[in-house]
Amino acid sequence: MSKQILVLPGDGIGPEIMAEAVKVLRLANDKFALDVELSFDELGGAAVDKYGVPLADETLERARAADAVLLGAVGGPKWDKIDPAIRPERGLLKIRSQLGLFANLRPAILYPQLADASSLKPEVVAGLDILIVRELTGGIYFGQPRESKVLDNGERMAYDTLPYSESEIRRIAKVGFDMARVRGSKLCSVDKANVLASSQLWRAVVEEVAKDYPDVELSHMYVDNAAMQLVRAPKQFDVMVTDNMFGDILSDEASMLTGSIGMLPSASLDANNKGMYEPCHGSAPDIAGQGIANPLATILSVSMMLRYSFNQTEAANAIEQAVSRVLDQGLRTGDIHSAGTTKVGTAAMGDAVVEAL
Amino acid sequence: MSKQILVLPGDGIGPEIMAEAVKVLRLANDKFALDVELSFDELGGAAVDKYGVPLADETLERARAADAVLLGAVGGPKWDKIDPAIRPERGLLKIRSQLGLFANLRPAILYPQLADASSLKPEVVAGLDILIVRELTGGIYFGQPRESKVLDNGERMAYDTLPYSESEIRRIAKVGFDMARVRGSKLCSVDKANVLASSQLWRAVVEEVAKDYPDVELSHMYVDNAAMQLVRAPKQFDVMVTDNMFGDILSDEASMLTGSIGMLPSASLDANNKGMYEPCHGSAPDIAGQGIANPLATILSVSMMLRYSFNQTEAANAIEQAVSRVLDQGLRTGDIHSAGTTKVGTAAMGDAVVEAL
Ligand SMILES: CC(C)[C@H](C(=O)O)[C@@H](O)C(=O)O
Ligand SMILES: CC(C)[C@H](C(=O)O)[C@@H](O)C(=O)O
Repeated sequence: MSKQILVLPGDGIGPEIMAEAVKVLRLANDKFALDVELSFDELGGAAVDKYGVPLADETLERARAADAVLLGAVGGPKWDKIDPAIRPERGLLKIRSQLGLFANLRPAILYPQLADASSLKPEVVAGLDILIVRELTGGIYFGQPRESKVLDNGERMAYDTLPYSESEIRRIAKVGFDMARVRGSKLCSVDKANVLASSQLWRAVVEEVAKDYPDVELSHMYVDNAAMQLVRAPKQFDVMVTDNMFGDILSDEASMLTGSIGMLPSASLDANNKGMYEPCHGSAPDIAGQGIANPLATILSVSMMLRYSFNQTEAANAIEQAVSRVLDQGLRTGDIHSAGTTKVGTAAMGDAVVEAL
Repeated sequence: MSKQILVLPGDGIGPEIMAEAVKVLRLANDKFALDVELSFDELGGAAVDKYGVPLADETLERARAADAVLLGAVGGPKWDKIDPAIRPERGLLKIRSQLGLFANLRPAILYPQLADASSLKPEVVAGLDILIVRELTGGIYFGQPRESKVLDNGERMAYDTLPYSESEIRRIAKVGFDMARVRGSKLCSVDKANVLASSQLWRAVVEEVAKDYPDVELSHMYVDNAAMQLVRAPKQFDVMVTDNMFGDILSDEASMLTGSIGMLPSASLDANNKGMYEPCHGSAPDIAGQGIANPLATILSVSMMLRYSFNQTEAANAIEQAVSRVLDQGLRTGDIHSAGTTKVGTAAMGDAVVEAL
């Protein structure tokens, strides 16, 4: 039976970079007999324009029925002033939550060909290869109650709730340990257990799960220290596991250490490794429509999809190697361009990967 | 009437670095006729050992009565396994809250003499001078309810609450704008308004306060983006204002950009500029008692105290210049040592500053 992939190009540069990723996926499909079928729909601002909501019920149903979802990026100034309840990001949060995509995997890898792009000294980041495992469907992103109200004294106030249950922590901790096991066998759990009740439970449950992984070296770090250590000596980390909010902050910080966030894919997985795959970067409205965006993070998201959701290791490796080859050839989009390399546009970069594959 | 300063050396390297800061303060007192009187007490682990609690009521009363508090650092492995309710950090959080020290000022300055110490490329950080204004007595650090409990199904869960009121946001926003006005006239407010209700109110109130500061250029940034931008191009920032949790993370990240967190002081102020002053770094239990810790952040905290709480600009400047001079002389503690400079211990560094002053 063929694998169904729902493609959601989204907003801004989303459609442009997705067009290239689809080219690569179609070729890989033929070459490796993957037997995938693509269908297309809208998410975010594009869905607001088409359906009046950032995630239509019928889109959600199609995503549920699919074997994997490939996403571009969402959001843009066009929808900045609309009702907060239907902002583009709401669609993203809803699809994560409704599909139960609790495990967000965000690699921060420095490509040797792009070592110069980092704002950090070469010796600090050379060979960097971190995986951040972020809890994606719980914590303060979804906690209830949350409210904005006017107090009796006439003053406005608003609050959010940061809840975690044992089972939510256990399942993401397991993903962290599993990932560490197939990588460098080191897991750093990040929390703020010296201040937060939820972090104290987090730490306790991670310790319990650790008993099943005696082969993985576990450490704990406070989030403020983790934010420092990522700048000071990022190569001390192998896998980091943390909650939704801390993961949002630290994964963006970590990806920027490479200087080439336009290269980084991500996966959001459910309990059965069904997943949504997307680049780490955003919809970059400032350069949308110009044909200059970097499609490589989206192309590498295709590779992640083949690896994690479809177990197609050979095809996944082939795509990664093709990307590496175009970098070796000196092809660069504007975001990763440096002296002595050849600047190309989105489509030319996609074509080059297709060629290399 | 003489000014009363309560000195709380705290734990780990606290007593060592404080001894040097006190030397400098005593000399400045004589030289500039500051008319300050010092008294000493305990906070954190040292207070647990002496009083059984990390902040004794009588210590709190003395802090209330004082004109300023000078703090070393708190915490250490010795108190890691004790009842969470009396952990050293609790003393710190309590004194902040009880004294109403809502405005935490954390500069991240790169000393030209220490440019090499940063893990970032010189051109990215040369001349860096950011001030982070962190809300310190509200938000998720103190929000109620917070609880750890067992659900009916037997599962453990825990939650924290992140509340902000209009008046809490307004007063910290004002500090941010006031600081921007006497610096580079640029304020970046950091929040997560695309997800959190409290951040939406934060952004709205900051916008309102901005009307009184037409001369300050205000921008808003999501916290994940701020964590990236600090790594990518930190010099884009002048003053940043943010909530307690985000400020904890971003100020540590920002201070590490300089590579010399051992140089950075901080101030925590109440509505009347009464303040507590302390180094940005922690109690470093691993090097405590060895006489090798860097006392300069604590010495510069004295300078901040003279500037903000006592309006003694001349004495404050003199201390900063003395610190700059010992750096020019090539004196370095281990944390900031590099080839071609002279490694000295804590006391020798303190003596050198005294000498330069
Ligand atoms: C767009 C936003 C809601 C989202 C998040 O905070 O999760 C984004 O920053 C991300 O990390 O995917
Ligand atoms: C020790 C800890 C409670 C404290 C905080 O989180 O505020 C520290 O990290 C700080 O930033 O002063």
